[in-house]
Amino acid sequence: MAASALLKSRVRRPSLLNKLAKAEDLIHFFPHGSYIGWSGFTGVGYPKKVPTALADYVEKNNLQGKLKYTLFVGASSGAETENRWADLNMIERRAPHQVGKEIARGINNGNIKFFDKHLSMFPSDLVYGFYTKDKPNNKLDVVVIEASAITEEGGIIPGASVGASPELIQMADKIIIEVNTAAPSFEGLHDITMGEVPPNRRPYLVMRPEDRIGTPYIPIDTEKVVAVVESDYPDQTQPNAPADAASRAIAGNLIEFLQHEVTAGRLPKNLLPIQSGIGNIANAVVGGLAEGGANFRNLKVWTEVLQDSFLDLFDSGNLDFATATSIRFSPDGFKRFYAGWENYADKLLLRSQSVSNAPEIIRRLGVIGMNTPVEVDIYAHANSTCVMGSRMLNGLGGSADFLRSAKYSIMHTPSTRPSKTDPTGITCIVPFCTHIDQTEHDLDIVVTEQGLADVRGLSPRERARVIIDKCSHPDYKPILTDYLDRAEFECLRKGMGHEPHLLFQAFKMHQNLQENGTMKISGWE
Amino acid sequence: MAASALLKSRVRRPSLLNKLAKAEDLIHFFPHGSYIGWSGFTGVGYPKKVPTALADYVEKNNLQGKLKYTLFVGASSGAETENRWADLNMIERRAPHQVGKEIARGINNGNIKFFDKHLSMFPSDLVYGFYTKDKPNNKLDVVVIEASAITEEGGIIPGASVGASPELIQMADKIIIEVNTAAPSFEGLHDITMGEVPPNRRPYLVMRPEDRIGTPYIPIDTEKVVAVVESDYPDQTQPNAPADAASRAIAGNLIEFLQHEVTAGRLPKNLLPIQSGIGNIANAVVGGLAEGGANFRNLKVWTEVLQDSFLDLFDSGNLDFATATSIRFSPDGFKRFYAGWENYADKLLLRSQSVSNAPEIIRRLGVIGMNTPVEVDIYAHANSTCVMGSRMLNGLGGSADFLRSAKYSIMHTPSTRPSKTDPTGITCIVPFCTHIDQTEHDLDIVVTEQGLADVRGLSPRERARVIIDKCSHPDYKPILTDYLDRAEFECLRKGMGHEPHLLFQAFKMHQNLQENGTMKISGWE
Repeated sequence: MAASALLKSRVRRPSLLNKLAKAEDLIHFFPHGSYIGWSGFTGVGYPKKVPTALADYVEKNNLQGKLKYTLFVGASSGAETENRWADLNMIERRAPHQVGKEIARGINNGNIKFFDKHLSMFPSDLVYGFYTKDKPNNKLDVVVIEASAITEEGGIIPGASVGASPELIQMADKIIIEVNTAAPSFEGLHDITMGEVPPNRRPYLVMRPEDRIGTPYIPIDTEKVVAVVESDYPDQTQPNAPADAASRAIAGNLIEFLQHEVTAGRLPKNLLPIQSGIGNIANAVVGGLAEGGANFRNLKVWTEVLQDSFLDLFDSGNLDFATATSIRFSPDGFKRFYAGWENYADKLLLRSQSVSNAPEIIRRLGVIGMNTPVEVDIYAHANSTCVMGSRMLNGLGGSADFLRSAKYSIMHTPSTRPSKTDPTGITCIVPFCTHIDQTEHDLDIVVTEQGLADVRGLSPRERARVIIDKCSHPDYKPILTDYLDRAEFECLRKGMGHEPHLLFQAFKMHQNLQENGTMKISGWE
Repeated sequence: MAASALLKSRVRRPSLLNKLAKAEDLIHFFPHGSYIGWSGFTGVGYPKKVPTALADYVEKNNLQGKLKYTLFVGASSGAETENRWADLNMIERRAPHQVGKEIARGINNGNIKFFDKHLSMFPSDLVYGFYTKDKPNNKLDVVVIEASAITEEGGIIPGASVGASPELIQMADKIIIEVNTAAPSFEGLHDITMGEVPPNRRPYLVMRPEDRIGTPYIPIDTEKVVAVVESDYPDQTQPNAPADAASRAIAGNLIEFLQHEVTAGRLPKNLLPIQSGIGNIANAVVGGLAEGGANFRNLKVWTEVLQDSFLDLFDSGNLDFATATSIRFSPDGFKRFYAGWENYADKLLLRSQSVSNAPEIIRRLGVIGMNTPVEVDIYAHANSTCVMGSRMLNGLGGSADFLRSAKYSIMHTPSTRPSKTDPTGITCIVPFCTHIDQTEHDLDIVVTEQGLADVRGLSPRERARVIIDKCSHPDYKPILTDYLDRAEFECLRKGMGHEPHLLFQAFKMHQNLQENGTMKISGWE
């Protein structure tokens, strides 16, 4: 196969061009039962051609359910690949994260074996051999990596995400590289470290978000490369969720709190490195920081994913540096990013998720960690994953990496969400979370559009009062207060009042939601 | 006051001897409402004279409930001080750990405001000012520290524990030093680092358990020292809980697993640094490692607390080095330790709990972390603190510091405990933990005397099958299997089967225990 001029300009290791192939000719590398790794994180930097060719092959030949794979991706891949694989029943097992209707459906109907794992820990457990321990060769059979370029040494320059690619490559028996020529080369934006195994693991010597500790490419064993494929279409991202009134109110409460902490001398004027998730509340918070009123300058960001609002923060002149494992911009955001490349490139660094989410670094830097849960309970446990304790939403992601180790561990949530029949039918402040991913020992701040509860140094009973008082919706405040009053009365008199619960009624509001479409119950009798 | 010759030999900074005082003359430093810090960790290295003088004063003058304090100790102090303070209603607020009947009673009847916090994080949050944020001076009023000696510089040589002393001292407005002359000087056994605050916090450059990164003493501002008191009795420890048949069976299962991991190449022959808690299972595990059959040599230990069984492991010749924040030996263990000082001293290092429990180091070293819970659920969440979701037992301690970051995160528990009326009335494997301190994303291994469940890489439903199958007691296996079968049936058909629960019946076994004295229920109808 002849390489295009554009491809040649990206692949600086000539011997790899000899392995140029078409995706549809690579099906034989993927027998049923293979363990497969893909690059990608939050829907950017994922391989496109090979997964699509495999899906086409399965579809054409009616092989649904007959070619099934164990699939590891740093976090989520593009919907048109991962979701389509789920729809075609091609996924036997999946970790450590997922986003997409069809894959969530497969997980929740029992078809896909899914486990979610701290995103910092997944690559580490992978190189320990924990996830390939039942395979004779202890390897991933094929790892498909998207590159934006390949160096003279054969090193891979990733695209808009690094994710778990270094460790997936380390564990690979065979490697297929998709060189994406539809997007510019991201060369220079990455700082790559490989997975090390104890007793020889070294510290991550990052003292500031801008510190480089690795190489600008992922080193590979070129003999493992079985094919190079040219990829001709960009990451298929979606527009960002816009900030609404509630999320702006949440952001307002949060920014007021940060200003208070600066005044009290517990935060420097330029804060500490910020971690912010994905979604409309995160957008509103980052948007709020970009606005003139907040008056925070020389900010830095240490986070997992950057979304469009960080471009505004860069453009406001208030953001000095940002580092993450992925830049998940909208299509318009990517256009803006490429157009302003020279302004952004030297203020930005992409690292592996082992590093972006490393508890070691998050704690050292004193990160301000912010996340959105499914629900928070009155004692400050939080559910990040399973609706009604059972239905997987997206997965844990890096939420616990950040909330455990951050200096400020902040959960932001609307106080209610609509049910099918009641605009405030679901309270996000509950007596007892139906699934717990973050413990009471991890959270400092809970904030809703109603207000902010600062629970640092409070006993569980104090915590419950302040969370109900500051954060719950007026429709639910009397119900939650009544729960707490009764639980205190019952438990204190029995000498078990440290964290009072009416244990056998704790999920009554959830039961009412299931049976009557709202969590508003008439009482706890 | 004249100093004894023994005291002079311990206090090498002469100006401090001018501050020599009797404990009973220091009461005026402790007005009602003071914030107080004590040295101490797991009942060793705690101040004895001043707390006792204060308790005597309250008792004599009937001031119960009128002199109440906020009390911070790294972990637990001696029962004769902390417990007595609780009994005399002298504790308004307490963190981050506690052991003792009276203090637990005070916490559970609502008299003491207690919060438990990750032991690695408590000192960090303390120096952030999170726990003194409502005080005008943002300081701890008085910190009472036991020393075994004082250096020329005025540096404090701690005794058998370091705990949170460095950070308590950093936050102190006034310091009282109790020099304990009843026990030998521990000089040379410590490696001390002080609390640093972001953005200037540095890495802990520990690459091996034996690496020293600090000073052999705690540096202090000697102008803050308001008194030095000679202390004349040793730590009041209890004998260790002996290993019983069940704990030996658990240890056997665990050691077999470790051997399997060595054979598979996932662990070096000398394992990786071991963390082990307190109690009879921990004793049995460490005892098992010391025995010839296990054949592990050149072991190292990175843990929070060393108990007597580690002396056996040293004596067996199989332990090369151990480091912790506390050595909590029994009275006989201390005798043995002092007698064999020269054999042990250069293989031992005591560090602050910020370092011994640092997620950074635990993950880097690839520690094998082992802990005992209250209960574990079928999806591998664990309850480490609250019986029936409400009654505080001892507190979280360092369990989550280790279980989150260890290479191998292991929960060991008997499959059942006796209730008042049924020798196997309580199952430690439950459908849904009544309180969750460790999440399903944190545990790799659950082990009971029945067997060992290796849940690495398993989906929740797979995890539940293997935990029930390998770990649950035969009396409960059918009940738990029936729960899982029904939960799967219900949740899968509703498309919410990722982690199937009968949410509104999940605590039925606990309810039966409360009402009928056993968790054996006749069914889930």
